[in-house]
Amino acid sequence: MAMGETVSSQQPPMQALVVAEGRLAYVQNRVRPRPGADEALIRVRLAGICSTDLEIVKGYAGGFRGVLGHEFVGEVVAAPAPDWVGRRVVGTINVACRQCAVCLADGPEHCPQRTVLGIINRDGVFADYVALPLANLLPVPDGLPDEVAVFTEPLAAALRIREQVRVRPTARVAVVGPGRLGLLIGQVLALAGGQVMMLGRSEMALRLPAQLGLPTGLVADFASDSFDLVVEATGNAEGLAHSLRLVRPLGTLVMKSTFAGAATVDLTKLVVGEITVVGSRCGPFAPALRLLARGQVNVSALIEATYPLSEGVAALEHASRPGVRKILLRPV
Amino acid sequence: MAMGETVSSQQPPMQALVVAEGRLAYVQNRVRPRPGADEALIRVRLAGICSTDLEIVKGYAGGFRGVLGHEFVGEVVAAPAPDWVGRRVVGTINVACRQCAVCLADGPEHCPQRTVLGIINRDGVFADYVALPLANLLPVPDGLPDEVAVFTEPLAAALRIREQVRVRPTARVAVVGPGRLGLLIGQVLALAGGQVMMLGRSEMALRLPAQLGLPTGLVADFASDSFDLVVEATGNAEGLAHSLRLVRPLGTLVMKSTFAGAATVDLTKLVVGEITVVGSRCGPFAPALRLLARGQVNVSALIEATYPLSEGVAALEHASRPGVRKILLRPV
Repeated sequence: MAMGETVSSQQPPMQALVVAEGRLAYVQNRVRPRPGADEALIRVRLAGICSTDLEIVKGYAGGFRGVLGHEFVGEVVAAPAPDWVGRRVVGTINVACRQCAVCLADGPEHCPQRTVLGIINRDGVFADYVALPLANLLPVPDGLPDEVAVFTEPLAAALRIREQVRVRPTARVAVVGPGRLGLLIGQVLALAGGQVMMLGRSEMALRLPAQLGLPTGLVADFASDSFDLVVEATGNAEGLAHSLRLVRPLGTLVMKSTFAGAATVDLTKLVVGEITVVGSRCGPFAPALRLLARGQVNVSALIEATYPLSEGVAALEHASRPGVRKILLRPV
Repeated sequence: MAMGETVSSQQPPMQALVVAEGRLAYVQNRVRPRPGADEALIRVRLAGICSTDLEIVKGYAGGFRGVLGHEFVGEVVAAPAPDWVGRRVVGTINVACRQCAVCLADGPEHCPQRTVLGIINRDGVFADYVALPLANLLPVPDGLPDEVAVFTEPLAAALRIREQVRVRPTARVAVVGPGRLGLLIGQVLALAGGQVMMLGRSEMALRLPAQLGLPTGLVADFASDSFDLVVEATGNAEGLAHSLRLVRPLGTLVMKSTFAGAATVDLTKLVVGEITVVGSRCGPFAPALRLLARGQVNVSALIEATYPLSEGVAALEHASRPGVRKILLRPV
């Protein structure tokens, strides 16, 4: 897939939200992606704005240049295998060589040669069209609306936690940060049968988790060492400090947020308390689609607003305000 | 056991190294410990200086006041069970209630009511006598010299890693920090059958690990993501930064050093690389004694010097110099 081009004599251009030098712009004349031999061309039907997108605009991921966005549902319009054409799909975001030792041992998510949709060296989904290898695509079940399927990628990221750590039904579990991702994490962890406490900084932040039926609390109200498993989902240093404070000795702290750069960590607590800290990133799509198809995770309540792609710059500004839920983008 | 007293009409006083307000002093008139109902009185035969002792003098552990020191071998001189009297013993350092939910589930090391020998609210072993519960004591096999048995506590701490994480014989393993503790860790991890690379900042620091037959390297010479398992044993921020840099995505970083307070951590690497960080503290004594009795860990090469207790202040100063191995203290 070619990047950085803005004109083409072969086919009409497309609209896209493009990041360059830390600035986000809406353009109408982006060249359409030219799929590689193993890639499908996908018309984006609906895309979601993630906190990582906001961090990228601020400079995370070493100055990404190109089309932003990695959460989407789309329709295949061209593919090397014709039976894919016309299918509605979601797509995993790591495009790996699938040949190196890391790919063979650990899967594509950690391939050192990987590109990542809208994050590392690969144009993303805030556009009319996107190209992805067939190996990255999963068909969306017919009954699943676009507004639900678009949550597959962040729900998979939440499910990643359950691939990495055991979630005991009797464990005391807390999610620090009841935001877009935190609310998916809370629901996914609660499916283990336990009490999952959603912790926020303000009463306002706790309204939505309470509506979703999750127990809530103010993070400052809880004593140190109160939880067996804590998921950090704020992405800020204060949330991290609280998360480490709240996890009990021998407990587990999952780092689920995109952190741009470094932060200060209480290493005395980590060592003396023998805490296990687990970084957590991308997760499995098929289980996420299953949970969505079965209606076992509520995503409808998480939608704040839908913008046309042409108003994408305003949409990202909206998404960056505190307490705002998922903002969707629709190419029209 | 009473603390903070310096006179007694009942029995002769003893010599001790005492910390108060961040200052270390040798005193000749410390009151002897009065053992509790379940405690033995132990005459200290030999004690070891650990980096944690140096940190405590600098103010770590919230301003400990009392007799310093927690690594020792001694002889029981009084005990509630008479068959203990005359036995040579080592002792675990966490004195727990052994009744609370944490003790019953996780063992004494994390009891919230615990005292810790020479670290938290309990006089330590840099003295003629120390008191410890019988439950904390382990007899030393007859053939094991004091100069070997005194390494039981730090060797147990090294073995703790093997209770917490799987050490694959084929894993690429590095110990960052070839100091007193690092050299025990390196030997213990190498017993899994793998290559354990001892990494230091200077050629001089690598001399001793090389003498012990461990492969060595300069930490700055290794590329990022070079190791599956990295043990941080420097206790400084630079060593931590290198350790996190060197561990591969999906790898494990064990934090084995006492860190006083907080440090800055590269959270992007931790999250994107899905690193697992494991805090690690006290370990099992019985396996440590077994390895020492079998001669499977070389500790003789780790002894730098032995001081009489009366020269303890100079001994701690010596122990604080870079590259210095284990300094022992002998009450005479």
